[in-house]
Amino acid sequence: IKHVVTSPLEHISVLGPMRYLAERGLIALHYVPIDREGVIDYDALAVMLGCYPKVLVSIMHGNNEIGNINDIVRIGDLCRKYGALYHVDMVQTIACSPIDLKGLPLDICTGSAHKFHGPKGVGILYLRDGVKIAPLLHGGGQERGLRAGTENVAGIVGLAKALALALEDRERHCQHMLSLKRALMEGLQREIPGVVFHGKCSDLANSLPGILHVGFPWERFQDTLLFYFDIHHISASAGSACMSGSGVASHVLRALGVDLRRPVVRFSFSRYTTAEEVAITVERTKKIAAL
Amino acid sequence: IKHVVTSPLEHISVLGPMRYLAERGLIALHYVPIDREGVIDYDALAVMLGCYPKVLVSIMHGNNEIGNINDIVRIGDLCRKYGALYHVDMVQTIACSPIDLKGLPLDICTGSAHKFHGPKGVGILYLRDGVKIAPLLHGGGQERGLRAGTENVAGIVGLAKALALALEDRERHCQHMLSLKRALMEGLQREIPGVVFHGKCSDLANSLPGILHVGFPWERFQDTLLFYFDIHHISASAGSACMSGSGVASHVLRALGVDLRRPVVRFSFSRYTTAEEVAITVERTKKIAAL
Repeated sequence: IKHVVTSPLEHISVLGPMRYLAERGLIALHYVPIDREGVIDYDALAVMLGCYPKVLVSIMHGNNEIGNINDIVRIGDLCRKYGALYHVDMVQTIACSPIDLKGLPLDICTGSAHKFHGPKGVGILYLRDGVKIAPLLHGGGQERGLRAGTENVAGIVGLAKALALALEDRERHCQHMLSLKRALMEGLQREIPGVVFHGKCSDLANSLPGILHVGFPWERFQDTLLFYFDIHHISASAGSACMSGSGVASHVLRALGVDLRRPVVRFSFSRYTTAEEVAITVERTKKIAAL
Repeated sequence: IKHVVTSPLEHISVLGPMRYLAERGLIALHYVPIDREGVIDYDALAVMLGCYPKVLVSIMHGNNEIGNINDIVRIGDLCRKYGALYHVDMVQTIACSPIDLKGLPLDICTGSAHKFHGPKGVGILYLRDGVKIAPLLHGGGQERGLRAGTENVAGIVGLAKALALALEDRERHCQHMLSLKRALMEGLQREIPGVVFHGKCSDLANSLPGILHVGFPWERFQDTLLFYFDIHHISASAGSACMSGSGVASHVLRALGVDLRRPVVRFSFSRYTTAEEVAITVERTKKIAAL
């Protein structure tokens, strides 16, 4: 692999290692163009894949900040056509979308247990038969020589159990989250004039059911809004937990050209969130608006 | 760091990454001489440290196969004298020896929870104030930027609890293991003429209380001895679990020049092993001898 094509909206856990390699001249890193809603320019991707031999494409299925769902089949078909290796970051979508790895045109995919109520600090790596990758950790022969060291056995068992539980009733959980998201969108639009939803997160058919990324028309709360939500007992974040405390605006929002003078909040839902909690959130947001 | 000095008896989880870097020309890797019992030649170490500027010394406190305990203070004093960075692999000795990090002349040390009855797959890295190391995983800012990715929270909490429990009654646990080790040594010497103990593991003051590495004078059982122990319900191994199934004789035994025609067994004890289990082990070893 000499070239890697990715999107500027990828998760920092994928961008970080790629940037590290690129800074050292070990790979050339190319970003596919996106539009103002974060949608990938598939034609530009095809042109890029035609240009670079020995290329890896790494694109996430669902975006962790703005909730956009990428068309991983369309990207995969392009990768097949141009002979590119294809990694899909499925951290947000495992246990949420119906996924049939055999039927998908991908070579590598990754997931993380804590996104489907499993333990933190353990994940999944899927490699299609015949795909060879370099070890992450060197030493003992554990995990087929790819990740040396005594395995996190309890975490692995917990991941498997959590995945089984999540898949048992996947469709009902997703419908539940979608209904909460719709209720929060409608509530905020009704009560907060000028509220905006970033990326494609208001497009319920093309975004994650568990994420709503909101811009509030309150420049006076630019640095303090999350604090006000917190003291009103609403748990929300501005973006990825991996960047919390960094004090830097999210690379995703910057790539989308979001107006950063206005405070942003990422609301997220799980199968355990209730309609009552959403109603309370709308009510308290209204209170904050009156401050 | 350009040069690394280590011992040929180090654990594969430390040797593996160092060999990987050395094979790529990123470091020069030097092995300190050892004697037939695995004891480090401290004078040779001093000469080596005088030769190499910008050197890292990585030596284990207690050896996982033969149980030798290295004089980490003596090595540390040499490192201080020559300005070497000093890493001690304490995987075998945390919760077993009295360790006062402030008083020890070391810069980096490592440990692993499952060696003191904590969860598998989680460990400790200690860095003295001011010691800078490169990140293991790139991406998010977790663990002070050294290991990106959502932390194994349950594992970390489990490690802390297990360490507290292990330290509560450390001295008594160690005395208990030592008495078991002494009983097994005496039992095997009494019942199995020609039995040998490798490294310094029969020197109770200078070896781990939980490990006895035995050579049996039974060439007829060269490849099958562990199988016979197994069917007699004695759980033991030939060496490191990290190398199990590799079918290759341990690099530690080869470095010591152990006669590999004779089968070897590593017996290990914990604070939960009983004197009765040791007596049964001697009894069944006698049975195997009669086969």
